[in-house]
Amino acid sequence: MTSNSSIPDASETGKLASLLARFAQFGGLATGGVTRLCASAEDGEARDAFAALLREAGAEVSKDGVGNQFGIFRLADRAGAPLVMMGSHLDSQPRGGRFDGVLGVLAAFEAGRRLMLAKRAGVSFDSDFCAVNWTNEEGARFRPSLLGSGTYVGKMSMNDALASRDDDGVTLSDALAAIGYRGTDAPPCVPSCYVELHVEQGGLLEADEVPIGIVTRNWGAAKIDVSFKGEQAHTGPAKMGARRDALFAAAQLICDVRAIADKWPDRIHTSVGRLVVQPNSPNVVPSQTDLSIELRAVDDSILQEAEIIAMQAIDTAAQRANVAVEIGNRTSRSIRVLPPAVGELVKRCALEAGVRSREIDTVSGHDALSLLDTCPTGLVFVPSVGGIAHNEKEDTHSDDLDTGMTVLMRVATRLCQSGGDPVAAARGG
Amino acid sequence: MTSNSSIPDASETGKLASLLARFAQFGGLATGGVTRLCASAEDGEARDAFAALLREAGAEVSKDGVGNQFGIFRLADRAGAPLVMMGSHLDSQPRGGRFDGVLGVLAAFEAGRRLMLAKRAGVSFDSDFCAVNWTNEEGARFRPSLLGSGTYVGKMSMNDALASRDDDGVTLSDALAAIGYRGTDAPPCVPSCYVELHVEQGGLLEADEVPIGIVTRNWGAAKIDVSFKGEQAHTGPAKMGARRDALFAAAQLICDVRAIADKWPDRIHTSVGRLVVQPNSPNVVPSQTDLSIELRAVDDSILQEAEIIAMQAIDTAAQRANVAVEIGNRTSRSIRVLPPAVGELVKRCALEAGVRSREIDTVSGHDALSLLDTCPTGLVFVPSVGGIAHNEKEDTHSDDLDTGMTVLMRVATRLCQSGGDPVAAARGG
Repeated sequence: MTSNSSIPDASETGKLASLLARFAQFGGLATGGVTRLCASAEDGEARDAFAALLREAGAEVSKDGVGNQFGIFRLADRAGAPLVMMGSHLDSQPRGGRFDGVLGVLAAFEAGRRLMLAKRAGVSFDSDFCAVNWTNEEGARFRPSLLGSGTYVGKMSMNDALASRDDDGVTLSDALAAIGYRGTDAPPCVPSCYVELHVEQGGLLEADEVPIGIVTRNWGAAKIDVSFKGEQAHTGPAKMGARRDALFAAAQLICDVRAIADKWPDRIHTSVGRLVVQPNSPNVVPSQTDLSIELRAVDDSILQEAEIIAMQAIDTAAQRANVAVEIGNRTSRSIRVLPPAVGELVKRCALEAGVRSREIDTVSGHDALSLLDTCPTGLVFVPSVGGIAHNEKEDTHSDDLDTGMTVLMRVATRLCQSGGDPVAAARGG
Repeated sequence: MTSNSSIPDASETGKLASLLARFAQFGGLATGGVTRLCASAEDGEARDAFAALLREAGAEVSKDGVGNQFGIFRLADRAGAPLVMMGSHLDSQPRGGRFDGVLGVLAAFEAGRRLMLAKRAGVSFDSDFCAVNWTNEEGARFRPSLLGSGTYVGKMSMNDALASRDDDGVTLSDALAAIGYRGTDAPPCVPSCYVELHVEQGGLLEADEVPIGIVTRNWGAAKIDVSFKGEQAHTGPAKMGARRDALFAAAQLICDVRAIADKWPDRIHTSVGRLVVQPNSPNVVPSQTDLSIELRAVDDSILQEAEIIAMQAIDTAAQRANVAVEIGNRTSRSIRVLPPAVGELVKRCALEAGVRSREIDTVSGHDALSLLDTCPTGLVFVPSVGGIAHNEKEDTHSDDLDTGMTVLMRVATRLCQSGGDPVAAARGG
């Protein structure tokens, strides 16, 4: 095995930050944030730029049926070598941050580029490397979130994914076709190991002054899309008792969902972030409301109990407002522990790089969690300034980006020289 | 004074219904309803058709600075004759009814057309007649409602009216310019009398089997636009106590506004029909909500007390959700009695036509109420099938349309032969 010292590293200081600055222009806002909704024109621009970077660096570029983008760097000397995969997502929230997702995609690209340079300089590898951009991680425009990675691992069918509609009724299929990313390539085979670099989106690393978070556990999450269907009427003459007010039902439910959080302080987070009202006119009793409930808990029994309460609250709200109710998308994921082997590998690489690391939970979902049942999976956090996330003010210091890149590069190198096996990779070197 | 029998009437059976069917195509929906929002392309088509009808019938057509459309039929033999005005509005609610507003505009046109024919046939009049289409009565796209008629009578400044923005940020000024209705004509002088024909939007006339409602009183109304301003955050990691959730504030307020109605059953109607959420993504704590409260009461003291409760509820909701609050447009109108003289005139005309009439309240606002302080004003209702309003299923039977037209025609004729004075008009004939 070739020593890691032969891989370029320190000379690339600031390279990732400059790539990120470039990508922050796609859907970029004056505030420094981005609005780059999945399969929008801005997302198309970012995808094109990612594909161009990959090609230029010598990767084989492909896109699958739901628009997942893959760039495979052929590092091994044989066909059918194990594949090490890294990546994240280029889509953003509306007025979201410029690091969320794109950091992991560009760090993966950068790792692949450097590994390819190393190979050309004579370093030998026994695995290929793939940088990936997963479609619709955010779930902001299309639901569910983690759509691209979920489809890749078979948790969701391609047809269901493509039929997902945004709030204007546009299908993901049509939106991807419009930007040229309704692909026909087969996705690459299941990787031997998947590792994702992401911003923390919380304040623990910053508070502890630790630059690397090794995710060991993810909170469980339950997501429920609800439609209340009432009857459009004039807010003037229509008698109160005869009204079937879909917004009144939604309002009661939102208050009830918020109250669930108070039952288990700091152990469950509850929210309704999305509410679409029809016809949405001041003097019309709303005929329909569509909303999305999220429950995230650190304990499965809490999550299950909270789901029961939420489902009862939906029915109660519908009855009080005399409206019909339909449950749409409903997904849940249990509390999960990430494989210790990948965590150990990251820990060793951080130690070698001379930077502190700590174990940490993730409350938010990430594409890495989709891969969890498919292959050994790792998730690495770098600090978020002030813990701010899904907000234009989201920020990560440039030196923390470099530290994350350094550690990820060491992880990638070890994996690609150990047949993609994290246990062997942690041992070697 | 020439006898009313010389005015064509019975021969025109179904004429109004056929005009209405034609206008129902502008923004027409498969269900029979219409979406013809103020200053939309569809509104522009309806306005163009109205102007063409007026010109063809010999009216002088003009449009003022806020897009109010006037068609003056010169019936009197002298300049400066009194003006009798009738009309309503062509704009609709989203997925609204095909009679709401447009009935009054087309009935006024039809009255003008017939009066002009009568004049050409030798009937003499001492007043001119004006058919009017008021801009943005509904308040669905731009706020406040009754914008065009309110500007005409000076309750609102032209600049404030034109600066009103829809939920996409488009000003009324730009929207009118886009369809060619940002006019420069001076509006006609204050009329001697204004009468509006409208569908009831309630079920009293139908229940009583009375085809003509003479409005004697309007409920008071208070309308309050509220913005809650919180902070965008990730619904995952953001701690509940640190959230500043603008949708949670809105939800509490909507529930509190609904509860106000239970304090005075059947004497107050309360609602929130409009709620805009930003950024409106399932996994983002909402940073801003904009909503419109409506309170409508049959008693001024109830209305005032309800407003106080609503304002307290706004503050309470903001505090609980830890968000800032801004009060936007805030309008109110007191309980008012309509002038008995116009009511007497309508009653007499109904009697002459051999149809039953009854006195009735209006809970909803109408352009006639804007004119109330400016000139003697009348408001006449025809039945709504099932009392359904602001709904695609809104309907009025064709024979009820004919009855309304017959009575309105008699009112118009009497007024235009009595110097526009309703007292004299009720006496004459």
